[in-house]
Amino acid sequence: MKLVCTQSDLSTNLSLTSRAVPSRPTHPVLANVLLQADAETNQVSLTAFDLSLGIRTSFSAEVLEGGTIAIPAKLLNDITSRLPEGEITLEDESSSMGDTLGAEGLIVTLTSKSGRYQIRAMGADDFPALPVIEGDQALHLPTTALLEGLKGSLFATSADETKQVLTGVHLTVKQDTLEFAATDGHRLAVVETTNESKVENTENQLEVTVPARALRELERMLAHSNSENQPVALYFDQGQVVFELAYQRLTSRTLEGQYPAYRQLIPHQFQRELTLERKQFLSALERIAVLADQKNNIVKVSLDNAAQEITITCEAQDVGSALESMPAQISGENIDIAFNIKYLMEGLKALPATEILIQLNQALTPVIFTPLGGLKMTYLAMPVQLRN
Amino acid sequence: MKLVCTQSDLSTNLSLTSRAVPSRPTHPVLANVLLQADAETNQVSLTAFDLSLGIRTSFSAEVLEGGTIAIPAKLLNDITSRLPEGEITLEDESSSMGDTLGAEGLIVTLTSKSGRYQIRAMGADDFPALPVIEGDQALHLPTTALLEGLKGSLFATSADETKQVLTGVHLTVKQDTLEFAATDGHRLAVVETTNESKVENTENQLEVTVPARALRELERMLAHSNSENQPVALYFDQGQVVFELAYQRLTSRTLEGQYPAYRQLIPHQFQRELTLERKQFLSALERIAVLADQKNNIVKVSLDNAAQEITITCEAQDVGSALESMPAQISGENIDIAFNIKYLMEGLKALPATEILIQLNQALTPVIFTPLGGLKMTYLAMPVQLRN
Repeated sequence: MKLVCTQSDLSTNLSLTSRAVPSRPTHPVLANVLLQADAETNQVSLTAFDLSLGIRTSFSAEVLEGGTIAIPAKLLNDITSRLPEGEITLEDESSSMGDTLGAEGLIVTLTSKSGRYQIRAMGADDFPALPVIEGDQALHLPTTALLEGLKGSLFATSADETKQVLTGVHLTVKQDTLEFAATDGHRLAVVETTNESKVENTENQLEVTVPARALRELERMLAHSNSENQPVALYFDQGQVVFELAYQRLTSRTLEGQYPAYRQLIPHQFQRELTLERKQFLSALERIAVLADQKNNIVKVSLDNAAQEITITCEAQDVGSALESMPAQISGENIDIAFNIKYLMEGLKALPATEILIQLNQALTPVIFTPLGGLKMTYLAMPVQLRN
Repeated sequence: MKLVCTQSDLSTNLSLTSRAVPSRPTHPVLANVLLQADAETNQVSLTAFDLSLGIRTSFSAEVLEGGTIAIPAKLLNDITSRLPEGEITLEDESSSMGDTLGAEGLIVTLTSKSGRYQIRAMGADDFPALPVIEGDQALHLPTTALLEGLKGSLFATSADETKQVLTGVHLTVKQDTLEFAATDGHRLAVVETTNESKVENTENQLEVTVPARALRELERMLAHSNSENQPVALYFDQGQVVFELAYQRLTSRTLEGQYPAYRQLIPHQFQRELTLERKQFLSALERIAVLADQKNNIVKVSLDNAAQEITITCEAQDVGSALESMPAQISGENIDIAFNIKYLMEGLKALPATEILIQLNQALTPVIFTPLGGLKMTYLAMPVQLRN
């Protein structure tokens, strides 16, 4: 294998793939990035795979001699990212460095304008193959819709690994919509975006739960990709999902198990409604959180219909108390309702609108937050018991 | 006590003083900031003190009622920094909040446009007084000289608390120079700046060792202060040092013990000299550090007089090897010399010049780095044994 590429191409693609390199690999070969150089197409691909999440990227290079090799990902990434801009030559050779490196084996030599780095590498044979999904038809999702869906749902997944299916986002592909849902048992976020691709098999609604970790990497990949208007192809198979961009591919195992029937948790009739400015509400909560943090994170929100304002309060015994008021358009009777302030703040951060609508019934029934205008998003937060 | 001030004045001054609030206070009162409001001068001062480092700042406010109170620093800072710009009222009252807060005591109420925060506070009596230095004459140091001296020395102090005097910077005030020195036993940094104040007592050379922690706060304070051209007054006393700016004052205990006679460590005659570009050398080292990190951080620098270049190499057995070359103007015979790469990099980062001069004798004698032009700084690094 021998190739010449630019520092920026190699560095950008290495830092992208490196996200799938496990920090504590279960097998030594997984700490590597698989480099494949194709002399016919002059394309180089890099692959990293932790047996659950896999990332492959490709870029153009001058491939003088094709070949495949597994190179320690962190070392190669750390060196390449510190190199000045310019051309880099990568070449492998077997055992000639045996004397200096103390053992026989594969060596990759990276040569830049001023320096030469030799890294002990591994053969490509041990590197596990990325799962391939054959024959299945692809869905084509607009990048913006996918990004909106991820931003509006990922934050609500559970971080508790024992909660299996709740650590992922549940995707439902219908004929003309794509729905993202996430819940950790205390709150629920649902985003409905337009699915512009024609789904031919309309009889079965396609559903899959994808680990949040893989989707966070997809989000990062999409945010950095320049092909904003190019759709992302999505392939499903038993236990596997593949997202394919022009030069990148992300594969992930899916989460097994029945996802909760979340739609039935969302009430459709409400006794009380209020409209308010999202950012003003959020910054009041951020201040009150300083005191709520000292206790159990519980804040009380009081609706005052006559004054058309809400008051947010928090009492942290032995420490102090906080009170903030702000205007709101309120319909329905006055009520005091308590929340875990973290669930309020996280939902408000994700709602993509200047003004939001809050709908509720009683002090202990689900409260629904929706953006006014724009994206179709629903955020449900469960209130908590008010303690006196 | 009752005062009205702007959010930005209170927040800026709180975050400055809070640096002297211990994270684990030995006595509860030390977790507070002492607020003193003077109705005659309309000045408010904030003080924090961990019994070693003390910071006092002051700002203008409308003081409606003078008074003194100790308020939990973190809580007040966290709330104030999140408030929107505008006026804030601070007021204390005793025990009227006893019912809501569950106990009798002092309460401070902070009122902003939309909110009201009540914080349990303490009387000022328990707050320890900042050390006062009486009668001594002050030295007046230009801010820029002080900043240069700190930047060029602080990094070389020891982080090992058992090394007492080496955890500080040693200041020597001579008639027309001010010298900063720091060493951790492996390397030494000395900066000589101009002392523009007239020292009347010229017979005794004034010397003091100040803890690095206090000087790091002084550096931060000076970097944020707007009075760049205003000199800083420096007062010494038994075991205490005070730096006084227009609206800020930093006090610190000094470090006891004899500071090493570092001047005699610096050679004056050299068999070899080289001049090279600092940044080019530094970035080559940063790349090589990726491999040096895998081993014992040792790199070898080889001088090649004929080629007028240096070569930096590192062999990390079982991992790989690195080599970088760069041009240098070299006089003297070729030599291989080994360093701990961290000491090289830290020194190079602090040397304020485009080009630097490196002077040395043998492979195991001190190596001297000086900037070409500008500040008078000397950096000494001890080489290490080359292992084969």
